[in-house]
Amino acid sequence: MSSYLCTGGGRGLGLELVAQLSRLPDSQVSTVFAATRSSPPAALKELIDGSKGRVVHVEMVITDKDSLKAGAAFVEKALDGKGLDVLVNNAGVMPAALDGIASMDNLGEGFKVNVEAVHYTTAAFLPLLRKGQQKRVFSISSTVGSIAMSAGYSFAPIPSYKVSKAALNMLTVQYALELGKEGFTIFMVSPGYLKTDMSGDSADLSVEVGAKATLEILFRSTKESNGKFYNIHVPGYENVEGPNRYDGKEVPW
Amino acid sequence: MSSYLCTGGGRGLGLELVAQLSRLPDSQVSTVFAATRSSPPAALKELIDGSKGRVVHVEMVITDKDSLKAGAAFVEKALDGKGLDVLVNNAGVMPAALDGIASMDNLGEGFKVNVEAVHYTTAAFLPLLRKGQQKRVFSISSTVGSIAMSAGYSFAPIPSYKVSKAALNMLTVQYALELGKEGFTIFMVSPGYLKTDMSGDSADLSVEVGAKATLEILFRSTKESNGKFYNIHVPGYENVEGPNRYDGKEVPW
Repeated sequence: MSSYLCTGGGRGLGLELVAQLSRLPDSQVSTVFAATRSSPPAALKELIDGSKGRVVHVEMVITDKDSLKAGAAFVEKALDGKGLDVLVNNAGVMPAALDGIASMDNLGEGFKVNVEAVHYTTAAFLPLLRKGQQKRVFSISSTVGSIAMSAGYSFAPIPSYKVSKAALNMLTVQYALELGKEGFTIFMVSPGYLKTDMSGDSADLSVEVGAKATLEILFRSTKESNGKFYNIHVPGYENVEGPNRYDGKEVPW
Repeated sequence: MSSYLCTGGGRGLGLELVAQLSRLPDSQVSTVFAATRSSPPAALKELIDGSKGRVVHVEMVITDKDSLKAGAAFVEKALDGKGLDVLVNNAGVMPAALDGIASMDNLGEGFKVNVEAVHYTTAAFLPLLRKGQQKRVFSISSTVGSIAMSAGYSFAPIPSYKVSKAALNMLTVQYALELGKEGFTIFMVSPGYLKTDMSGDSADLSVEVGAKATLEILFRSTKESNGKFYNIHVPGYENVEGPNRYDGKEVPW
């Protein structure tokens, strides 16, 4: 009977996370709040309409503190005195720099959406999360943001994404160190290279497989997971050489 | 006979780096460009006046691309056909969040000065660095920006600094991976906890000791240093437990 809020819930991984959560039994999930920056796209609307009230849309611009405040007030009212159990920071952008790193003109955009917005979202929902039973904050990062693994990803011309995800990892660890003392579990997952609008059809895994593996990391997490960064586990991908290994292990920083 | 440009050269570590470089023999150093955002502070002016032309002031706002472009044009003219050998990205800010991480309202400022400005400075000087003999870009990071070492620094209420330095580390590795192929050495140092205006008198080391140890890392670097992050080495501090160890080794990410 836990409540979830997932940002970027209108498409891609976020929409699929919302869909899979909404199909779980009442004993596991009460309400799934799907946050998007404007009115719900058709696929989310369909999901909401068929969910018997379990999926609730929250319109909220996560780069805008006032909008987050309004979103948190809406969710607080919908929860009617209960806390929010799990926040999934999923929304993100993947800006490219096709003419080499010196040509990158979107580092600020990466920081704003992939890091600052996660910070302000977490901060805005913190009072509701403190009242929750699970006190889990689960952020979607990427092995592409692993500094240690960088050489293996030098083919990918997305430095703003890489740098902002490394920053997100540090931000998450900072939250974990501080709020772990209050019983929070604040951690990250790399959801795999998925066939979303963001990554295209050349990616490794279907969104369904990536979302399922991502939720498995969430459901298996314990207080020991606080401050950790996990790869998803996909059977058959445990021993792949290079960046497309999905072994369920911790990702090096 | 190398030329250096150091940002944030008006005070603290930057001023001392400029001062120590300016005292080296002609065989090692030709010109030291000390960049500051406005007219030179008294201590830098004194240094310039006594330097017989070796220390040259560059007024340039590193968060402003047009200002960087003008700064690079000024340096190009001063070098009179030669390249710039070494860029030292030293300027930075250390914003605090005294009421816990959720109160942090300066993450964007940390990113802008400590990461985006380093990116735009490096990009602006890249044509001149490509013409240089050393092709070194040396950025001042901090062990406080090591995700792996975070638990040991949880006492320090400077999350914006920590997150932005982790991002700087990733940015530097991205530059190193791409430009290493052209013979560049792009790397980082943690200069120690120094008694500057930024850190105050409770810090461990004098600015002189920190600057000397920082320059030793620079002078001892080889092409193998590309993409690496070094701690300074200060005799007597090699085996200190905790964050104040200065052992000259690589810092974990």
